Amino acid sequence: MSTLMDQVNPELLRTYAFWSVILVLKMLLMSLFTTLTRFRKMAFINPEDVKSISPKLKPKFDDPDVERVRRAHRNDLENILPFFVVAFLYLLTNPNPWLATQLIRAGAIGRIIHSLVYAVVPVPQPARLFSFGITLLVTAFMIVQCIVYFK
Amino acid sequence: MSTLMDQVNPELLRTYAFWSVILVLKMLLMSLFTTLTRFRKMAFINPEDVKSISPKLKPKFDDPDVERVRRAHRNDLENILPFFVVAFLYLLTNPNPWLATQLIRAGAIGRIIHSLVYAVVPVPQPARLFSFGITLLVTAFMIVQCIVYFK
Amino acid sequence: MSTLMDQVNPELLRTYAFWSVILVLKMLLMSLFTTLTRFRKMAFINPEDVKSISPKLKPKFDDPDVERVRRAHRNDLENILPFFVVAFLYLLTNPNPWLATQLIRAGAIGRIIHSLVYAVVPVPQPARLFSFGITLLVTAFMIVQCIVYFK
Repeated sequence: MSTLMDQVNPELLRTYAFWSVILVLKMLLMSLFTTLTRFRKMAFINPEDVKSISPKLKPKFDDPDVERVRRAHRNDLENILPFFVVAFLYLLTNPNPWLATQLIRAGAIGRIIHSLVYAVVPVPQPARLFSFGITLLVTAFMIVQCIVYFK
Repeated sequence: MSTLMDQVNPELLRTYAFWSVILVLKMLLMSLFTTLTRFRKMAFINPEDVKSISPKLKPKFDDPDVERVRRAHRNDLENILPFFVVAFLYLLTNPNPWLATQLIRAGAIGRIIHSLVYAVVPVPQPARLFSFGITLLVTAFMIVQCIVYFK
Repeated sequence: MSTLMDQVNPELLRTYAFWSVILVLKMLLMSLFTTLTRFRKMAFINPEDVKSISPKLKPKFDDPDVERVRRAHRNDLENILPFFVVAFLYLLTNPNPWLATQLIRAGAIGRIIHSLVYAVVPVPQPARLFSFGITLLVTAFMIVQCIVYFK
């Protein structure tokens, strides 16, 4: 580990750490946004939640706005969490610091835009496709670099 | 990396590692609990599962008990997995060891209680809200510390 | 951290990094496979997606093939992401290098087989159960080793 770990550029690790916590913050906001949307549409699932709000309310499973936020959030789990792993391993491959910084930034900003155009203000395609594609391409590039380096 | 990584308190890393594996164990138990609940309620989704159990059984998608466990499990993915990332990065910010230990413990125990009151023995609100809030606050605090340190 | 981090076998870290990126690649392919299946079955959920493809198309939420791929993908989130965390922490426990290499490989290959028999070519049980069980057992073994080491 010494050989691999010690060669990581400290400035790059800071960049990685900064954008990673920004992305975790973004994911937490999705949780809160789901709850907010549930209140706005009065669409709760768990009987104990429904009961604690109003005795007349009924559970509601298929509110389109709530389900949209939940799909955006699930898409985060599918894409951001693997990005954390790959970007960290990519740092161990001794990448060009300038390039690595741009990639980490682009990958993170792609996901922020993705949430905005998916869940906050639904925008016609291909806005979501493009923002999704940015992070996907960054991740794919990092995967290739890692496979070449670690194989 | 040397500068950042080398300053991590070894005792803190042990605490982080211990509670992280406890949380992974807790998440695995959610998988097993889902399967157990599927058997108890005879509610399977995949045709090949249904078929391997009884030729007369039909797929069942909406059993309330199974879906409750699955929601609790998904909530773990949304909260525990980002917690692993933030808590690790937080260790690199040279935090007060006593405070960091308490935060990691509180964050982990919050999630264990959350699963118990959500999936195992459904308890009226605000039990779930409170346990959810503990880990959320810990995570939010760590995020702020990390942003200040890595910006 | 020095004491724990520095003792990690560099060759083991390479093995971990290699199989981790292979698993992330596998997870990305699940995303693409979901999209592919949505096109094959013309089963889209978001109104803006439906609209951008054909004005006559209607959203479709319950296509069995799409839902099967999504269940397989969610199963990846539940199992592969925690595996990344535990396997990394396990490397810090100073494990036998040969054993650790076999475990990481087996855990990764188990998940690749799981996706193939679940989502790509549905195979009768117990194919999925066995492949699921391989990675589960590897993860459980690593958890026990970590708890003993870090407690």
